[in-house]
Amino acid sequence: MTAMLQGERFHVTYRVASSAQNIMPIASALCLEETVEFPADILPDSVEPGIVGSVESAKAIDDNHWEVTISYAHEVTGGELPQMLNVVFGNISLWPGIRVQRLALSPSLAATFGGPRFGEQGLRQRLGVWDRALLATAIKPMGRSAKELATIAGQCAEGGIDLIKDDHGLANQSFAPWRDRIHRCADAVAQANAKTGGKSLYLPNITGPWETMQERAAIAQATGAGGLLIAPGLTGFDAMRHLAQDRSIDLPIMAHPTFLGSYVLNPEQGISPYALLGQLMRVAGADAVIYPNYGGRFAFTREQCLEIVQGLTDPLQGLASSLPTPGGGMTIARVPEMVATYGHAAILLIGGDLFRGSDSLVAKSQRFREQVTKASA
Amino acid sequence: MTAMLQGERFHVTYRVASSAQNIMPIASALCLEETVEFPADILPDSVEPGIVGSVESAKAIDDNHWEVTISYAHEVTGGELPQMLNVVFGNISLWPGIRVQRLALSPSLAATFGGPRFGEQGLRQRLGVWDRALLATAIKPMGRSAKELATIAGQCAEGGIDLIKDDHGLANQSFAPWRDRIHRCADAVAQANAKTGGKSLYLPNITGPWETMQERAAIAQATGAGGLLIAPGLTGFDAMRHLAQDRSIDLPIMAHPTFLGSYVLNPEQGISPYALLGQLMRVAGADAVIYPNYGGRFAFTREQCLEIVQGLTDPLQGLASSLPTPGGGMTIARVPEMVATYGHAAILLIGGDLFRGSDSLVAKSQRFREQVTKASA
Repeated sequence: MTAMLQGERFHVTYRVASSAQNIMPIASALCLEETVEFPADILPDSVEPGIVGSVESAKAIDDNHWEVTISYAHEVTGGELPQMLNVVFGNISLWPGIRVQRLALSPSLAATFGGPRFGEQGLRQRLGVWDRALLATAIKPMGRSAKELATIAGQCAEGGIDLIKDDHGLANQSFAPWRDRIHRCADAVAQANAKTGGKSLYLPNITGPWETMQERAAIAQATGAGGLLIAPGLTGFDAMRHLAQDRSIDLPIMAHPTFLGSYVLNPEQGISPYALLGQLMRVAGADAVIYPNYGGRFAFTREQCLEIVQGLTDPLQGLASSLPTPGGGMTIARVPEMVATYGHAAILLIGGDLFRGSDSLVAKSQRFREQVTKASA
Repeated sequence: MTAMLQGERFHVTYRVASSAQNIMPIASALCLEETVEFPADILPDSVEPGIVGSVESAKAIDDNHWEVTISYAHEVTGGELPQMLNVVFGNISLWPGIRVQRLALSPSLAATFGGPRFGEQGLRQRLGVWDRALLATAIKPMGRSAKELATIAGQCAEGGIDLIKDDHGLANQSFAPWRDRIHRCADAVAQANAKTGGKSLYLPNITGPWETMQERAAIAQATGAGGLLIAPGLTGFDAMRHLAQDRSIDLPIMAHPTFLGSYVLNPEQGISPYALLGQLMRVAGADAVIYPNYGGRFAFTREQCLEIVQGLTDPLQGLASSLPTPGGGMTIARVPEMVATYGHAAILLIGGDLFRGSDSLVAKSQRFREQVTKASA
């Protein structure tokens, strides 16, 4: 006999496509599939019943959809994030009609994974900015040399942009090899800061081969980077969690949603923007989370964007909030509207638009900053 | 000027929901989004035009869908798998109506990532089995002690099952801590092999926290495990690629599809079973790939299953084939049909059904083996 369950459970609320007749059989099958993956009628006595997921509530949303909340024993995760994801949406990710709506972590799980180490307050402290929304841009495009990208980074910093990140497609390409780019860009931002008295941060992209990430994070820090950009869809969420919890690394983390779209785009299946780009990004340690703002190059609605903001900021067992970072085809002209929508607790990300027109990049960055300051007043 | 493109390109074929009028603007936008992420009209001169994805062909599938093949310069990947995934289906994973149908790797990319190190032939060599389909099972359920699970593993080996894997939900839970389980199970399988003269392999699940995987793989090998089970949806595909290429580890890899369902279940968006569970699993080094067989607990059709088989075995720049491993609610009664469908070049995975009925696990395993041998004759 094992008898090890302590009684602490976490909850997952699913939206399930089902008739009234089928919902309980489906919910019960889900409870088994995500835990013991074993027929209920032949479960051995040595397996405590509490190991199996338990249906806590089920209510009809409409004739064909139900909201079902299932609780799982804390112990089935083993305190490991990959296994928690596996319990929340593992094999059932291969079932049609199941969508994760939201999580309610247990206190122990929240403490185990840790969440954002910096959060909004920690990031603002590094930047020394308290009274307005924050600004971000991406150095781009891929294909430019490290020297050119560093010049761009320096100009953006000189213009007063708070967070200057690598475009998430900048990896270790021959046109701008990773180490060379990080050194040059960090130097350029440091020089601009020295000139302006500002505290702009450079965030290199450390999304890369499994065996490089720890080293790249350490190099980034040693080189003077002010944060890290990572795409958990490419690296796995736990790579980010690891870097957020690694005490040898003392840098805020910005997360990018690339490769994750298929989870959120199908309203009948997958994981809600609230749970995936909000809660799970935050649980896994993102201090700031990029997502496609409504009205840009992507298909997210305003409601979906605000849902993500809620996932990043709603009470979550004491975890720090993450900063919403709407981007994806944003323009300086839209700054007043974005500030009206998101308030101060957001990072406005504008990339390509800064490169348009005859003004210099420094001038465009300054204009971006002025607009944000004005709209935040 | 950078001028570094060598001319080698790889191809991705997408299914795009579009009218005839919009298809070329959408395809062109996709080419930009997945590479430079920058407006075409202001691309700097220093960026070689070949950096941008290029539409190679577009043909109508029906009134509202097109098949579009886009080529990308080898160099945009930087020779890194996460960045290749980012190019293939990065930001556009956040667009509705785009589905990756198949990849055509370039020779250099295939050589860089390596694919399966063992493949069917290598795995058969380890097992000494040449004349029939292979057998696999999972030790389960979660909640049993390491000792109980080891007893099960030993009995399955004694009954002649080739590959005995951890259930993918077995992580490092308190009921069966990882190290203890791996030691006990590897020992039990070795003892059974000594008794029967067989060569059954035990495959522990090494899906786990980022910082544990390398160590767990090394421990598994030192302990006498015969392979590794990993879930790239949880760890990122590159963790598997790393382990497949790490010369200090000499173990075949079996991949599990948990957490990946949302990519394949929406016919209008995502990644096809052929490309995701076939090609990408194989490129990333899986020697065997588990997927939900038709007619079990999951919703895959026979056609989708055969599509996956093709992705695992179609010519792919000289990469070894991976072994299809259909499972998910399979029974011994279905063995003849499964062998008829898949032939010898497959691993038949039966879990829960072995535990049904009054016969011993050894007897059920023997019966499974007899059925496969008979059906393969």
